[in-house]
Amino acid sequence: MVSECPHIIVFMTDFGLNDTYVGQMKGVILSISPLAQIIDLTHSISPQNVVQGAFILQKSVLYFPAKSIIVSIVDPGVGSLRKAIAVETDRHTFLAPDNGVLTGIFQTQIIKRCISITEKRYMLAVQSATFHGRDVFSPIAGHLLAGVSIQDLGNEMDPSDCIKIQLPKCSTSDNGQTWNGSIIYTDHFGNLVTSLDTERFDASNHWQLQVGICKPIPIVTTYADVGNLQPLAYTGSSGMIEIAIRNGNASSTLDVGEGDPVRISIIAK
Amino acid sequence: MVSECPHIIVFMTDFGLNDTYVGQMKGVILSISPLAQIIDLTHSISPQNVVQGAFILQKSVLYFPAKSIIVSIVDPGVGSLRKAIAVETDRHTFLAPDNGVLTGIFQTQIIKRCISITEKRYMLAVQSATFHGRDVFSPIAGHLLAGVSIQDLGNEMDPSDCIKIQLPKCSTSDNGQTWNGSIIYTDHFGNLVTSLDTERFDASNHWQLQVGICKPIPIVTTYADVGNLQPLAYTGSSGMIEIAIRNGNASSTLDVGEGDPVRISIIAK
Amino acid sequence: MVSECPHIIVFMTDFGLNDTYVGQMKGVILSISPLAQIIDLTHSISPQNVVQGAFILQKSVLYFPAKSIIVSIVDPGVGSLRKAIAVETDRHTFLAPDNGVLTGIFQTQIIKRCISITEKRYMLAVQSATFHGRDVFSPIAGHLLAGVSIQDLGNEMDPSDCIKIQLPKCSTSDNGQTWNGSIIYTDHFGNLVTSLDTERFDASNHWQLQVGICKPIPIVTTYADVGNLQPLAYTGSSGMIEIAIRNGNASSTLDVGEGDPVRISIIAK
Repeated sequence: MVSECPHIIVFMTDFGLNDTYVGQMKGVILSISPLAQIIDLTHSISPQNVVQGAFILQKSVLYFPAKSIIVSIVDPGVGSLRKAIAVETDRHTFLAPDNGVLTGIFQTQIIKRCISITEKRYMLAVQSATFHGRDVFSPIAGHLLAGVSIQDLGNEMDPSDCIKIQLPKCSTSDNGQTWNGSIIYTDHFGNLVTSLDTERFDASNHWQLQVGICKPIPIVTTYADVGNLQPLAYTGSSGMIEIAIRNGNASSTLDVGEGDPVRISIIAK
Repeated sequence: MVSECPHIIVFMTDFGLNDTYVGQMKGVILSISPLAQIIDLTHSISPQNVVQGAFILQKSVLYFPAKSIIVSIVDPGVGSLRKAIAVETDRHTFLAPDNGVLTGIFQTQIIKRCISITEKRYMLAVQSATFHGRDVFSPIAGHLLAGVSIQDLGNEMDPSDCIKIQLPKCSTSDNGQTWNGSIIYTDHFGNLVTSLDTERFDASNHWQLQVGICKPIPIVTTYADVGNLQPLAYTGSSGMIEIAIRNGNASSTLDVGEGDPVRISIIAK
Repeated sequence: MVSECPHIIVFMTDFGLNDTYVGQMKGVILSISPLAQIIDLTHSISPQNVVQGAFILQKSVLYFPAKSIIVSIVDPGVGSLRKAIAVETDRHTFLAPDNGVLTGIFQTQIIKRCISITEKRYMLAVQSATFHGRDVFSPIAGHLLAGVSIQDLGNEMDPSDCIKIQLPKCSTSDNGQTWNGSIIYTDHFGNLVTSLDTERFDASNHWQLQVGICKPIPIVTTYADVGNLQPLAYTGSSGMIEIAIRNGNASSTLDVGEGDPVRISIIAK
């Protein structure tokens, strides 16, 4: 991680990949800032699932270059009076609706400046009621990249006035003997990513996981630690406990899904 | 929209996102023109649906930088004798099969030059019968970006000789009391985008929409104007009337789809 | 194909398009090498299907610019002791797990150097057990682009010590009267791509194809050679025989799929 890359824009949205929404946003940005380099983190946040978006953003953001402009649009309130905000931190600049999707960022990065975006001259002249990703956030991102200062986008606001949401929990009520969380999302392989954060547990114990009506699932190091088509839980690439079936699909096999509770407990010796 | 960006190529195709078609096209372009910046408008046009492609292209094109090269491939006639054309307008340069996919462009942009592409030296040496996107259009786009003149691609032709198709209609037979159109496509959220163009109606009236066997659906401003899980119609981000279910999926709920007729009428006071 | 493009990275993986895996990899690369131009060949290799990946890579690689860095990750053994390798050929540099996914490359390109990747300083400091695409291969690719020599990545190894796999066959047991192969994958249009390589057959004969319990399918030049909704076989854009239904979907109609055997034979005159 050696260089600053002030020409990079990262998108995270729930717009999907099949429509023209993302392509139009890129067109708007490149019309203003032709040298922008745009990365798609994902456009497959579950529609309007702000909690999932906030979780995924927090887990992914450390992999993006310093000074990136990160545009996070999961926006069930588009067209209402919700604010649009620009947040400059010690590492990145974020553009998002003020609905809590930046909650994890407020918790983990140092906030340097927070702006309520109001300046019409940096938005498209004609604005739809439903697509501020194209009409507001993309032109703002393009203008930031082209040299506009974040202060020029609107009025400074106190970060504590921005909306925060409850992120998926990883909690214990018995001094760490058991931990409770939930399933956040299902990945392409059918693996179930949970909110249980490996850093919180005492790794010197042996743990098992309980989800749905399944038998307890062992928490192991890697796929090879269980037999073929057997369930396992392990620390996934985001540092969270994930549930998988070796050479299989946990999502379709275990009959559990997003939002379902999970719990881990120490295996008695 | 401040700069000209002669290094930008925009793709619209029906090739989908799962195969290697799009990746191979990008490889061909970058082999010829290494600094090309490529935007995917969409690769999810319904297979071989030229009408849908023409409609979506027209609605999206204004968001792309001036001087972009826009490659639009929905090409059921690939391998037949249909022409490949290059069309320079006051805003962009288009490459497409001559099958009507540029109909909306011919109607809305000023045509400066129209070429029937024939010059083999700007195509790949070996050509498949089925993938001119890679073997013809991509190398042509790369060479245009690298400085080849559009006139060098083949013989000039009269734009009126290019094939035009009937775009989805938005018509009235009673002086604007009712308007008839159809559903063009379904987006990622299950919203149904119609051919009914808001600019044509008298917005001082109250309107309702009829589709399938559903009860009339009110045309409102935004989602919040109806109750949870209720249907609504509104002006979408493309300027067309869209049908949605608040916090739901209109496509799966209403049992209507692409091509189905829609009609709006004034609500009696 | 006129220029060398040492800033281009090509990805082929089985990570899918819906998760954050690919976006995180791009973030890591651009953090190290901000001017990288990244092409997605495909992220839709069937999960853990190394044979399919090897086949598709070999068929696509000639369309990428000389000097591209091609990262091919289909990696069922991630987290085990399998090696990670860097292979420099006369045309490209490949990064991949040592599991046979480069088999077709070893067969068709001239190998100049082969390295077992071991140098931790070019990987991310914290490595997950399951996502070496982000933690190992992406930073290695970024550092190669930034000027690190392939020799500095680890120890040179003999290419003959790299793992090779059996690629899908195209074989005859009767001097070319019949050829046997299999279905490799199904594309976006429902066309079935086989391992039967057109270059091997005597094109002066008339051929037919047998698959599943279908009636023999004629091998023709293009879609228009058969009636509407009729099956056909033809040379696809990768040079292999493909099976399609004119204006239809062969995959869903013919009830055959990946791995199923196919055979072609000469039609008696």
